[in-house]
Amino acid sequence: MAPPYASFVSELKEHGLLKSVSEVLHWDEQTQMPPKAAGHRGEQVALLAKMLHAKFTSPRFGDLLAAAEAALPRGAEIDSDEAVNVRETRRSYDRARKLPADLVEELARTGVLAQQAWAEARSKNDYPAFRPWLEKIILLKRREADCIGYASGNRYDALLDEYEPGATAADVKRTFDALRGPLVDLVRKIGQSPKKAPLEVLERQYPAAAQERLARAAAAAVGFDFGAGRLDTSTHPFCTGLGPGDTRMTTRYDERYFGDAFFGVLHETGHALYDQGLPAEHFGTPLGEAVSLGIHESQSRMWENLVGRSRAFWRHFMPQARQAFPQALAGVSDDDWHFAVNDVRPSFIRTEADEATYNLHVMLRFELEQAMLSGEVGAADVPAAWNERMKNYLGLTPPDDARGCLQDIHWSGGAIGYFPTYTLGNLYAAQLFEQARKDLGDLDAMFARGEFAPLLGWLRKNIHSRGKRYLARDLVRRVTGSDLSPEPLLRHLRAKAGELYGVS
Amino acid sequence: MAPPYASFVSELKEHGLLKSVSEVLHWDEQTQMPPKAAGHRGEQVALLAKMLHAKFTSPRFGDLLAAAEAALPRGAEIDSDEAVNVRETRRSYDRARKLPADLVEELARTGVLAQQAWAEARSKNDYPAFRPWLEKIILLKRREADCIGYASGNRYDALLDEYEPGATAADVKRTFDALRGPLVDLVRKIGQSPKKAPLEVLERQYPAAAQERLARAAAAAVGFDFGAGRLDTSTHPFCTGLGPGDTRMTTRYDERYFGDAFFGVLHETGHALYDQGLPAEHFGTPLGEAVSLGIHESQSRMWENLVGRSRAFWRHFMPQARQAFPQALAGVSDDDWHFAVNDVRPSFIRTEADEATYNLHVMLRFELEQAMLSGEVGAADVPAAWNERMKNYLGLTPPDDARGCLQDIHWSGGAIGYFPTYTLGNLYAAQLFEQARKDLGDLDAMFARGEFAPLLGWLRKNIHSRGKRYLARDLVRRVTGSDLSPEPLLRHLRAKAGELYGVS
Repeated sequence: MAPPYASFVSELKEHGLLKSVSEVLHWDEQTQMPPKAAGHRGEQVALLAKMLHAKFTSPRFGDLLAAAEAALPRGAEIDSDEAVNVRETRRSYDRARKLPADLVEELARTGVLAQQAWAEARSKNDYPAFRPWLEKIILLKRREADCIGYASGNRYDALLDEYEPGATAADVKRTFDALRGPLVDLVRKIGQSPKKAPLEVLERQYPAAAQERLARAAAAAVGFDFGAGRLDTSTHPFCTGLGPGDTRMTTRYDERYFGDAFFGVLHETGHALYDQGLPAEHFGTPLGEAVSLGIHESQSRMWENLVGRSRAFWRHFMPQARQAFPQALAGVSDDDWHFAVNDVRPSFIRTEADEATYNLHVMLRFELEQAMLSGEVGAADVPAAWNERMKNYLGLTPPDDARGCLQDIHWSGGAIGYFPTYTLGNLYAAQLFEQARKDLGDLDAMFARGEFAPLLGWLRKNIHSRGKRYLARDLVRRVTGSDLSPEPLLRHLRAKAGELYGVS
Repeated sequence: MAPPYASFVSELKEHGLLKSVSEVLHWDEQTQMPPKAAGHRGEQVALLAKMLHAKFTSPRFGDLLAAAEAALPRGAEIDSDEAVNVRETRRSYDRARKLPADLVEELARTGVLAQQAWAEARSKNDYPAFRPWLEKIILLKRREADCIGYASGNRYDALLDEYEPGATAADVKRTFDALRGPLVDLVRKIGQSPKKAPLEVLERQYPAAAQERLARAAAAAVGFDFGAGRLDTSTHPFCTGLGPGDTRMTTRYDERYFGDAFFGVLHETGHALYDQGLPAEHFGTPLGEAVSLGIHESQSRMWENLVGRSRAFWRHFMPQARQAFPQALAGVSDDDWHFAVNDVRPSFIRTEADEATYNLHVMLRFELEQAMLSGEVGAADVPAAWNERMKNYLGLTPPDDARGCLQDIHWSGGAIGYFPTYTLGNLYAAQLFEQARKDLGDLDAMFARGEFAPLLGWLRKNIHSRGKRYLARDLVRRVTGSDLSPEPLLRHLRAKAGELYGVS
């Protein structure tokens, strides 16, 4: 290893280490922090953001990066370790250099305070209390986008690029447009089918302690290492990697609804398996980081939906579920259960939505975010604009803002441009899963025997271990042989609709 | 405020803010962190320690401090805000400048790893597994002491000064010597008394959930603000202040023994009340910090023992305790209970020891630490040296090292020179409490009515709000009119021994 590259990596790793400290603060804020600490936590987070930004954008680090670039051997493989770490750091460095320190610090501080305000506003169904915070965040994010710049003329691209490097709003729109028509059509046909899922079986009494035991058992069975991670409760479920050996996920338990926690934990487990599969020796460098949020989401959606809602999965887990909930599951057939956990119908809450309508929730947010950034929709108009789109896409009007535009944590933390990665994740998941089936053979037979290691091994090899070696779109092409397409997801949804609702 | 002082304070507060981040890591490590994260956490903690040290000892900060010193008005009060912050920062600065960065970093990293090793060694009663860590820590702490220097010729002084500024081993020895004789004598007389506490009442079935409810109720009743703090469980109970609005304490529940958790929580609450009473506007500067560990301990011991084991306290809490534990407390008289929670008898575990013998545990550690630092006792000889002193002071031989020299967390984290502050705390507590009685009147009548605010207000005014304005010994003299003396503690212990055991 040449000295310039080694010095560069050493500095980069120290930056990654400090960044992982701020992830501990974030996890603590969401799961442990007492309410009166929010102000102080905001100061801590802002200080770290300022220090991280200063460290990363310092001329000294710029020189190390330039020296590492210059020292790359002529004709080095473009996907060699050195080339990848230099290329991806250059991308982040150029981006970070465009952001003034005061903006970085202000965004970090506002993110903490606005999230506290959001949590309270949501619990009290009080949008006006949150509105000034959203206004402030929109202004800060516009300023951020304008600092970054966007050759395309669409301010959204500057923000989206942070979450899904290389993607543009126009790409996303094209993909979403190809998906929307067939999806709306399928959802309509399902709604008209006389067959209805026996949803009531999910709404019986499911004691939280038993839910937690079953969820932990499932997470461990698919491969989550509890010696290197945790599962806790929080208002908004999430998964975060605090460094090698420390991957933490959260959920929330509703004793009157089975679906939330169990599939939520499988979802976060998908994220966690990706995190636990990143190469620890590359921690702090792009080779130790996830490709993009879309690919991250593909992992969570695969385990939650493609694995967790399959007949084969429940062939293995149903006996455990019956032991955990002898009363709730008394008289519930395996078929009823399979139908209930695969129900498709429009609903208010994105995180509780089924595999099909979920994507319509995402499209709504994608459009609304673009309108907020362009100034077409102001913070005051968000509830009305939200409700109008809910009516158009899902035929529903939210009974209140808590079940409408206040439901998601993202905007309060400054995450605008993040939502499209959820549907990209669904699409990536379906396309990758089709390939895994081709490569591995009868996955269903394996799941039915409780064997999840072959699929996890395939993901480790093809996705997790690669870090940021390829851009998301290139990775998917490399693994599946095709560009991203809505067809695998539509095939999957149509097959289930055919089986359960007799439509396609 | 003069510009040089303002610049100095602003930099100092930023340092305090970053330091509070490392406190979050520490709390998390003790209460939440998965085992496989220890290595990464060690790196995080070491990085912050290195950064904090570099920031604090930088020539830039030295210049700011010197400018603030030079700008102090001639004839400024020596206890004015400015004079205090400058004086106490100079003390820490001069100390920190003597420590090389690599030693600071190594101490921080070793502290995390050795604590994990200690926890495992203790749970497996495996001293040899911990020995190499203790060896390493002794070497590092010797090096630290030698860097700091010690005019007295006693290496111990260099370490003690960090925990109890201004105190020396000779002072401590003198105080301990004055206490030891009367204490050993009193404990002997108590042992010979035919009256025995009905200890069995504490060893009944006390469900953990009910213990937690009662402990939380007691903490809240004496003044702990749960909106600005937490109570969790950990192997070694502790309390830590993560900044304004964020004071966290821990305990552990033993369902077959009442005393541990309840009095443990009162103890940590005493620390927490101090932390919650520090002036938030001075956070990050000496005026926002506790005087010394001895004074900190005086607060915990006052609430645990002088308040929490008094008849008056239980006059108020016994009805709640009876509701919480209807079975365990059936047929237990108030007198039996009072006697049981005030039992005095030699035992193995310091944290579970009674008010009197506790101090003999501390004296043992104080002597052993000095012997380890001087080289007179090596890590291999620690168990034997420990057991020999236990026999001499308490007449007991520990059945194993887990109940002997492995019982405390302190050494594993690098805290050598810390233990004497526990007995100093007991002495300070008794002396301050006598004064509070003089100033406030019939405290017992107040406690019996559940009124703890007058005592807390007195502590807020005389101790908490003052931060580091005075050195511990000066503060005590200022508040009580006398130098520290073993007499108030001996008076308190003799009075109880007279009442319960008929000896004095």
